[in-house]
Amino acid sequence: MKKITICFFFISITSLFFFHSLSATNGEKGSTSVSFSKETEACIECHRIYSPGIVADWQKSRHATTVPKDAISKPALQRRISAEAVSQGLAGVAVGCYECHSLNSEAHKDNFDHFDLKINVIVSPNDCKICHVREVEEYGRSKKAHALSNLDKNPVCSLLVDSITGMKTVKGGRITTSGPSENTKNETCYACHGTEVKLKGMKKIATDLGDIEVPDLTNLPNHGVGRVNPDGSRGACSACHARHSFSIEVARKPYTCSQCHLEPDIPAYNVYMESKHGNIFSSQYQQWKFDTVPWVVGKDFNAPTCAACHNSLVVNENGDVIQNRNHDFGSRLWVRIFGLIYSHPQPKDGRTYLIKNKDGLPLPTTFGGDLASDYLIDKVEQEKRLAAMEKTCRACHSRSWTEGHFTKFNLTIAETDKMIATSTIILADAWKKGLVNKKNPFDEKIEHLWIKEWLFYGNSVRYGSAMSGPDYTAFKNGWWDLTTNLEKMRSIVYPSKK
Amino acid sequence: MKKITICFFFISITSLFFFHSLSATNGEKGSTSVSFSKETEACIECHRIYSPGIVADWQKSRHATTVPKDAISKPALQRRISAEAVSQGLAGVAVGCYECHSLNSEAHKDNFDHFDLKINVIVSPNDCKICHVREVEEYGRSKKAHALSNLDKNPVCSLLVDSITGMKTVKGGRITTSGPSENTKNETCYACHGTEVKLKGMKKIATDLGDIEVPDLTNLPNHGVGRVNPDGSRGACSACHARHSFSIEVARKPYTCSQCHLEPDIPAYNVYMESKHGNIFSSQYQQWKFDTVPWVVGKDFNAPTCAACHNSLVVNENGDVIQNRNHDFGSRLWVRIFGLIYSHPQPKDGRTYLIKNKDGLPLPTTFGGDLASDYLIDKVEQEKRLAAMEKTCRACHSRSWTEGHFTKFNLTIAETDKMIATSTIILADAWKKGLVNKKNPFDEKIEHLWIKEWLFYGNSVRYGSAMSGPDYTAFKNGWWDLTTNLEKMRSIVYPSKK
Amino acid sequence: MKKITICFFFISITSLFFFHSLSATNGEKGSTSVSFSKETEACIECHRIYSPGIVADWQKSRHATTVPKDAISKPALQRRISAEAVSQGLAGVAVGCYECHSLNSEAHKDNFDHFDLKINVIVSPNDCKICHVREVEEYGRSKKAHALSNLDKNPVCSLLVDSITGMKTVKGGRITTSGPSENTKNETCYACHGTEVKLKGMKKIATDLGDIEVPDLTNLPNHGVGRVNPDGSRGACSACHARHSFSIEVARKPYTCSQCHLEPDIPAYNVYMESKHGNIFSSQYQQWKFDTVPWVVGKDFNAPTCAACHNSLVVNENGDVIQNRNHDFGSRLWVRIFGLIYSHPQPKDGRTYLIKNKDGLPLPTTFGGDLASDYLIDKVEQEKRLAAMEKTCRACHSRSWTEGHFTKFNLTIAETDKMIATSTIILADAWKKGLVNKKNPFDEKIEHLWIKEWLFYGNSVRYGSAMSGPDYTAFKNGWWDLTTNLEKMRSIVYPSKK
Repeated sequence: MKKITICFFFISITSLFFFHSLSATNGEKGSTSVSFSKETEACIECHRIYSPGIVADWQKSRHATTVPKDAISKPALQRRISAEAVSQGLAGVAVGCYECHSLNSEAHKDNFDHFDLKINVIVSPNDCKICHVREVEEYGRSKKAHALSNLDKNPVCSLLVDSITGMKTVKGGRITTSGPSENTKNETCYACHGTEVKLKGMKKIATDLGDIEVPDLTNLPNHGVGRVNPDGSRGACSACHARHSFSIEVARKPYTCSQCHLEPDIPAYNVYMESKHGNIFSSQYQQWKFDTVPWVVGKDFNAPTCAACHNSLVVNENGDVIQNRNHDFGSRLWVRIFGLIYSHPQPKDGRTYLIKNKDGLPLPTTFGGDLASDYLIDKVEQEKRLAAMEKTCRACHSRSWTEGHFTKFNLTIAETDKMIATSTIILADAWKKGLVNKKNPFDEKIEHLWIKEWLFYGNSVRYGSAMSGPDYTAFKNGWWDLTTNLEKMRSIVYPSKK
Repeated sequence: MKKITICFFFISITSLFFFHSLSATNGEKGSTSVSFSKETEACIECHRIYSPGIVADWQKSRHATTVPKDAISKPALQRRISAEAVSQGLAGVAVGCYECHSLNSEAHKDNFDHFDLKINVIVSPNDCKICHVREVEEYGRSKKAHALSNLDKNPVCSLLVDSITGMKTVKGGRITTSGPSENTKNETCYACHGTEVKLKGMKKIATDLGDIEVPDLTNLPNHGVGRVNPDGSRGACSACHARHSFSIEVARKPYTCSQCHLEPDIPAYNVYMESKHGNIFSSQYQQWKFDTVPWVVGKDFNAPTCAACHNSLVVNENGDVIQNRNHDFGSRLWVRIFGLIYSHPQPKDGRTYLIKNKDGLPLPTTFGGDLASDYLIDKVEQEKRLAAMEKTCRACHSRSWTEGHFTKFNLTIAETDKMIATSTIILADAWKKGLVNKKNPFDEKIEHLWIKEWLFYGNSVRYGSAMSGPDYTAFKNGWWDLTTNLEKMRSIVYPSKK
Repeated sequence: MKKITICFFFISITSLFFFHSLSATNGEKGSTSVSFSKETEACIECHRIYSPGIVADWQKSRHATTVPKDAISKPALQRRISAEAVSQGLAGVAVGCYECHSLNSEAHKDNFDHFDLKINVIVSPNDCKICHVREVEEYGRSKKAHALSNLDKNPVCSLLVDSITGMKTVKGGRITTSGPSENTKNETCYACHGTEVKLKGMKKIATDLGDIEVPDLTNLPNHGVGRVNPDGSRGACSACHARHSFSIEVARKPYTCSQCHLEPDIPAYNVYMESKHGNIFSSQYQQWKFDTVPWVVGKDFNAPTCAACHNSLVVNENGDVIQNRNHDFGSRLWVRIFGLIYSHPQPKDGRTYLIKNKDGLPLPTTFGGDLASDYLIDKVEQEKRLAAMEKTCRACHSRSWTEGHFTKFNLTIAETDKMIATSTIILADAWKKGLVNKKNPFDEKIEHLWIKEWLFYGNSVRYGSAMSGPDYTAFKNGWWDLTTNLEKMRSIVYPSKK
């Protein structure tokens, strides 16, 4: 411990010059000169040497260059924090390392003693809530917050996960599936859906400052949207507001969404990038502003990014609100077009594992397509949400254009569902004929083809329609594949008939 | 109507401040202070509130910040408009809403009375022609302008479209195809090729200013390159010059082309992006100039984008012309490498549905590969075009390098055609043996494999060769797929032989 | 010849103005005013007209705006050239056309007389070595430098190349493979691996200045990493430092690596771009500095690019070295995760064709997975390299995070190898049963499936794990494909059992 203190002291001295020159550049983003808490200064003193990347990232952030009492005093539309008040201790200093990593320590099983400070390893949504209360509450109601449970508490989804990611061995002409390992689930499905992070105990690690003891946590690294944190909260704000700049610019750019919303199962990013919107974004975004609040359509940006349509506060030049900010990303959507056999109205509750369909399964439709309507939003709510979305479209497009677009989209949803229903009939015939075993509907060749029909191809066509990316409606996992995949299924189940 | 007038007045008053501050920033791109017509001012007054995105987009455009009489007075190489003269009424004001949306109203079936102005919903190439006469004439001769007819007036292409995008239902072990719906064609093939936009009548729509009557047009939204407009003209300039900035910068960046020219059927953008040219573009384009006319190679850009090779006016620093501008995008090409069974010389006429091959089909080759030479450019013309393209390459590459490149490309074209010929022989054997039914050559499993051989894999290798993207010549839809796909066909048609 | 001289003179006069205005902008990047050699001025005088792109590219480069004697006088960490001294003739002038294209002319079989100067067509690593000695030596030890021999001197790899890229013809229900042509190998596998460039003789080419004689070289264009040059050296620096800006910025951006390291066989770029690192890069790189030496983590960049982890000199703000520069790109890697059947420790020698496994084949493992350990780095070296890599991670991540990450990665490597072993057992059964012919293990349908298991899917999962891109561990060539591809193999080899 003595050795550590000496090192610590030495670093303090040698780093004075750098540290001060760094403080001098503060205040660029905030309205007043900004001071750091003593605890945060202590963190920085070491970490600017030992983890320089995150310290520098934070230093350029709004958190480092403003203080909550200024942030809270802005006019309503310009506010970036939604709390009514910020506790005295936090209000007057920058939002630094210690301000975030020390909150609600009693709830944090990952809290530990670190050079005389009590530090939480993970900053959870419940911690961010101290300033961003509305955002955390909205997020908490979303499907995203429950993304882990929506997989692992749903036996159908779990079976799909296990069938795909389980280890296969072969013996005597028979493939056996075991597992999957926690590790593999964590870096496939749970990488986006989130893991459960729990305290196993403490562990000793060797550092340049000597051995230190730190919490030993399960299932990390992970920043999945439905991560269960050691304080019991759900979600990871850093999934989109990447560490440690927590930047609204980054979250508003489509690259953030591309971490999870990618082909073949969720080609949102791919379709966007090939759409007219994506083309304009890629060609012109360097002239746009991504950090203004509120976000003024036309002035700050000329074509929507994911955030503009799905969660940002968007206004016109007069300051009239076109869309309010919402961190429940499903709240502006009326229909759900991916991840399940058929499209269906958005679920009422973010916890989709609570759904029960007519067959008693936690799915929004039966395999035949019957809706579990009690768990899904009704027509009135669907129309309300569609109308709200159309308002965003009309910031650039005429009413006729907008109506034409959604008429087309609705027809496409119906047609893709019908194509998938055809594939389900063929699969059911395969089960009936005993060609494959129905027990696990996810593990044989023809079942894989059927999964592709809805998880990849039906999906792609709907996304391509929703955002006008014709490659994904046509040849890239689109109608070409919907059709040729069906013909493959046909050739297996009804080989002699045509 | 009274209620609308009042709203209108109220908006006029409240928006004065914003509108004036906006006018003050005019003239940045133009050489003189720019005034708007009264009609355009009236449009903006409402639309800056109700469709702020497109108004702001236009305000930043060259159209809003210059006047035709200045544009027309530039030295020949610097001119952005090709008309000899511009009519008195248009010459002295910015090219605003009304200037474009009111032209040739007698021809526009989509013209309607909108708050006392006669407005065309769609601005067509024939309208743009008033200033951009040469560009519209060139475009009118291109395959792009006829892209819709080239599909729907060609029974072979139409059968392919219908086979892929038609709705499939299954009954008694038999798949039946019906349709496809107009909607699905519009958002798959016709999304790029264009739709026919016709007037159905008028319709009433509810707006914030009360009910208004607007034309009810078929098959919109669409901005396909071969769109047939309500004034009878063909094409959509906005396919590439995106609304409402109509920007040369956007059109010169490869993202624009990526809307349609994408893998698996036309991997032009994908190959470009992975090529050395694309790498240099992605790494350095922020230091380049995309809005200069003429475009000076080396000074304005260090590696070509799609536009540099295929349609822009490119000069060297001395002002010597390397390539003239041409909006017939095929005019610099000698060989056609995608979309059809075999490569072939470019067609003489943009209307490819007029071709008749030896089998009487409107295809540039027979299924066996015989050229419909009467309809295709001859060797002299091919060599002339190749020589012109080589001149562009030589702006950076040596004569030896350039010749080596095209020698390689020609060999690759020949080899891919030979691989496809092999696949056609296998398919013909399948037809002969009665394994599949020849009647529709596009609807059975082995036929789908055959289509992939030429529509995806032969294509990809040729594009990969043309622009040096080795992933697409090798493992990404390249020789790997040309070969493994052929082996799949073999295993079906000659299962016991090897 | 007279005609040429006259043209030459005319150009000289007319270009004076342009040329001088160009010289005036020199010196931006260098510390002193920079002069060009007379020979280089002569080159530019013509080539700024005849190949303006590369001249302008060079003019913006550091080579054109600094002189070696200044470059060599920088403090050690800031030095961009590693030679101890630079010969008198080169030290005081810009690194221009002639300075590079005239070096070591006696070794250059591509040297020729060009308007009274002796010019090498190709500038080889051995020429660059005059200033960049350490980089060339490191590179010379790498697998990259030997990438051509590693394919064509390895009979197993050669058989794979030939099987894929050979021309297939069909006769009597039998597919015959011939070739492949040099041309096709050059633009598929050898496009990245490099070609052998040899002198065939001289050839006459027609130029605007009359006929000239130039060397006739084989297998060009090519800039593959293992190119064998006409001076006998190996490699092409321009593969990454693109002509003629030779820019460190370009080499540090991931687009450069994307030319070769792409899905499906090497999805490094794809995984990076969808990872959190890639997201941050895409969102923020415009605020980063890509041309500083040394590269300061946090200050110059907030998330790594390929170069940061794999070859750049990276320091913290104090100037403490986190990673030394190394142009042997494998030198920081302990495990090899792509291109071969199973993962394995990095080879000791860049010439992998020298390996002999227990079956006598030049592969790092047997088909069953036994390591050729004598040729591979040992545990101590593996751990040393892993520890070095972890140091880079810890510039932003905690020790726990970093250890967790690599524990996960190691488990994934083991699991993917096990899945591939399962596929190999199935293939071996197919061979045993006589379903397919073992003689060429790369040419029949089930063999193609087996290749995909390791060359595409095992790979993708490992890359997805290494850089945290969950699409590639899951649905995009990931576990989904590992599993469904295995089931396809099962359905062929054990059709009746399940």
